[in-house]
Amino acid sequence: MSEELRRRNVEGEAERVEHKLVRAESNSSSENLASNLRDSEIDSEDDKIGKGIDLSGNIPSGTNKAPFFLETLLQDLPDRWRNWVVRGVFSFLMLTFFLVVIYGGPLALMITTLIVQVKCFQEIINIGHSVYRIHGLPWFRSLSWYFLITSNYFFYGESLVEKFGVVINRTDFLRILVTYHRFISFSLYCGGFVLFVLSLVKKYYMKQFSLFAWTHVALLIVVTQSYLIIQNIFEGLIWFIVPVSMIICNDIMAYVFGFFFGKTPLIKLSPKKTWEGFIGGGFSTVVFGFMMSYVMCQYPYFVCPIEYSEALGSMTMDCEPSILFRSTNYKLPDFLSGFLTTLGFADSISVYPFMLHSLSLSVFSSVIGPFGGFFASGFKRAFKIKDFGDVIPGHGGIMDRFDCQFLMATFVNVYISSFIQRDSPQKLLTQVLYLKPEQQLQLFHLLKENLESRQILAPQV
Amino acid sequence: MSEELRRRNVEGEAERVEHKLVRAESNSSSENLASNLRDSEIDSEDDKIGKGIDLSGNIPSGTNKAPFFLETLLQDLPDRWRNWVVRGVFSFLMLTFFLVVIYGGPLALMITTLIVQVKCFQEIINIGHSVYRIHGLPWFRSLSWYFLITSNYFFYGESLVEKFGVVINRTDFLRILVTYHRFISFSLYCGGFVLFVLSLVKKYYMKQFSLFAWTHVALLIVVTQSYLIIQNIFEGLIWFIVPVSMIICNDIMAYVFGFFFGKTPLIKLSPKKTWEGFIGGGFSTVVFGFMMSYVMCQYPYFVCPIEYSEALGSMTMDCEPSILFRSTNYKLPDFLSGFLTTLGFADSISVYPFMLHSLSLSVFSSVIGPFGGFFASGFKRAFKIKDFGDVIPGHGGIMDRFDCQFLMATFVNVYISSFIQRDSPQKLLTQVLYLKPEQQLQLFHLLKENLESRQILAPQV
Repeated sequence: MSEELRRRNVEGEAERVEHKLVRAESNSSSENLASNLRDSEIDSEDDKIGKGIDLSGNIPSGTNKAPFFLETLLQDLPDRWRNWVVRGVFSFLMLTFFLVVIYGGPLALMITTLIVQVKCFQEIINIGHSVYRIHGLPWFRSLSWYFLITSNYFFYGESLVEKFGVVINRTDFLRILVTYHRFISFSLYCGGFVLFVLSLVKKYYMKQFSLFAWTHVALLIVVTQSYLIIQNIFEGLIWFIVPVSMIICNDIMAYVFGFFFGKTPLIKLSPKKTWEGFIGGGFSTVVFGFMMSYVMCQYPYFVCPIEYSEALGSMTMDCEPSILFRSTNYKLPDFLSGFLTTLGFADSISVYPFMLHSLSLSVFSSVIGPFGGFFASGFKRAFKIKDFGDVIPGHGGIMDRFDCQFLMATFVNVYISSFIQRDSPQKLLTQVLYLKPEQQLQLFHLLKENLESRQILAPQV
Repeated sequence: MSEELRRRNVEGEAERVEHKLVRAESNSSSENLASNLRDSEIDSEDDKIGKGIDLSGNIPSGTNKAPFFLETLLQDLPDRWRNWVVRGVFSFLMLTFFLVVIYGGPLALMITTLIVQVKCFQEIINIGHSVYRIHGLPWFRSLSWYFLITSNYFFYGESLVEKFGVVINRTDFLRILVTYHRFISFSLYCGGFVLFVLSLVKKYYMKQFSLFAWTHVALLIVVTQSYLIIQNIFEGLIWFIVPVSMIICNDIMAYVFGFFFGKTPLIKLSPKKTWEGFIGGGFSTVVFGFMMSYVMCQYPYFVCPIEYSEALGSMTMDCEPSILFRSTNYKLPDFLSGFLTTLGFADSISVYPFMLHSLSLSVFSSVIGPFGGFFASGFKRAFKIKDFGDVIPGHGGIMDRFDCQFLMATFVNVYISSFIQRDSPQKLLTQVLYLKPEQQLQLFHLLKENLESRQILAPQV
């Protein structure tokens, strides 16, 4: 039978080619031969590249797979229901895992982020390797991993150095790593670059360059953004937990609203998404974010940045909460307060300033956030794959669940650096203490003079 | 005749297909049909992609083109000679231009870098558009340019803010741009990202994603690295001129040595490169760099970083040269000095420390630098183009001349940040002055306490 099928298909191919020949013959434009041939090449390329390559056989992609114990448990249910149960069970498991990791604190979160990042990278690279099929060069895959390690070394190093430099500097060996961190990272990268150039094989030039680019784009998406996630965690767990929960909430609520009220299609890319879901999800996210922020603002555990305490000699998450997390009275606008006072309400409300910032986050996560998902689903369509992988039964790959989280993390990071985080005196002091003692003294005198000249400090006689 | 040629070629194509059919038929392995078909697809893909796409018709690529006045002047010369003269004339013109720009100072250099960067980006993007031929979506090109502008806004902004923040902060409007710089940049980027997702057209998914990746890799290569070049310029012109000249010197001398002594091929990728050229070029570059550094160390114009002077109220390149550029005595190792003193020489030498650093630069530029060139030539081979463009007669595109410069610039930047530049008291003072006055005072007292507790500053009664 396989023989029969093969012949039929070969005949099909021959037919297609013939059709092309006819077209080429009948093309009577005045252009030269070369352009004609190019045209027919475009067609066949379109078949394969323009409209997507079918990778369904190569990428372990599927949401239907369920672990054995669930499979046997649910065998009597209809398919549709079984999928639902599997999806539900694993959503619950992921949520539990998320809570456990939060309970584990910043280190546990950092390690989880790293694992998620590596898994996402692997899924993207796997797709790349299936697309370009350079099975003849198996160690080319090692090169991708080498670049992953190098860039992680660079980015994680940068953030650890920035945060814990003073502590790290106490050990001689670590001090060398800190001082020459960029140089070491760059040397490692150059090693990979040279290896890449040396690995070029004539027949595969184009594929190799494509995969090189593919690897770098994956690094850009996954590594740089997960580095920003780590930075957010260091600013205080709330900057991590609230945005992540918002994306999850938006996902779920958009689905729920879409399911019950969905009528108007939102975007061609994802035919199942509707305007009703988009708006309902967005509204829910804003409310949810506001309430969640209110709760979290009350716990120093969520609110304090992770700092090294000289006094304790260890890391600490205790602090005097910053102004963002202290209840503040906001006077309502006149037209509103006039109305409210006649009704017997107060003319001001008392909220944590962070709750107001949470509005920006929730608006971003429900307006721009979904575009991360659209991007991912466009990408999957381009390569005709259903999911990025199959590690989470009922959900697909890790990348399928985290597509929107990366963009959100970048937004949070930028938001913090633009609106929240100003250089604090403490932070600058840390930097000053890096200087040699005589330079510290020099800075002291420079600052003193400057302050005196501007009469901020009373000149001493 | 064109008709005849076309038919012949079409017949050729049919023959190739037939050959493939035979192969497919004769393949009697136990694998299924799908894999068989995939195999034959690989072959045809290899023809077009694996072995490179012939873009010779699309990319304006050529080193033979000469401007009209030269063409008429040289018309009696044999082709080979004419190429030589054109190449020589334009090498000379470029060198002159380089000198004029240096004479013009840092601002002129910055603008030139920007222009070169834009040109390189254009050349890379042009190739991408020819490869993926999405002529149906002309405004997709605009999106690439939009990303170029956005990322330049971000990177140039970052470096200007870092360097001239204090000055910029004096104007209210500019202060807003500075304070929210990252937020504005990110918003601009998100705009492009959303536009990209909205622009996705079903038939072109794969091509659009490929070009999106292509654009981002181009940004990574061109924009980020040219940002590093700007940073190097700010550190002092010497950090720009010496490395650039080293790469040029290495290019020329490797060619000269290869021409006269070249026998042993160096790398398959560039058949004309030889070990003799590589070694001779490297040796010349080390000597050249050493001498050039010696000369340049004597001029404050080359040596001083560009700073804003409060006293002058303007930019200045006057300074007390740093220790790097002050002649220093180095005692020679014992075995050498014993030998030299018996010959009547001194037992120490006096050099500028920068000259020793120049050795690292020249070694990098002659060992790793050429790999930038190999990379570029591999890339050109993958796409079967001779040059990246044709703006410089006799040389090709801008990218052809700058392929090694980008990697070198990154090296210099990393080198400075690892080995040269430490936070200076002045630099930190600038940061302190960003704080609010009361915070400046707070830092002052914190620092004072700290210095007193460590007895660096005598405690006041």
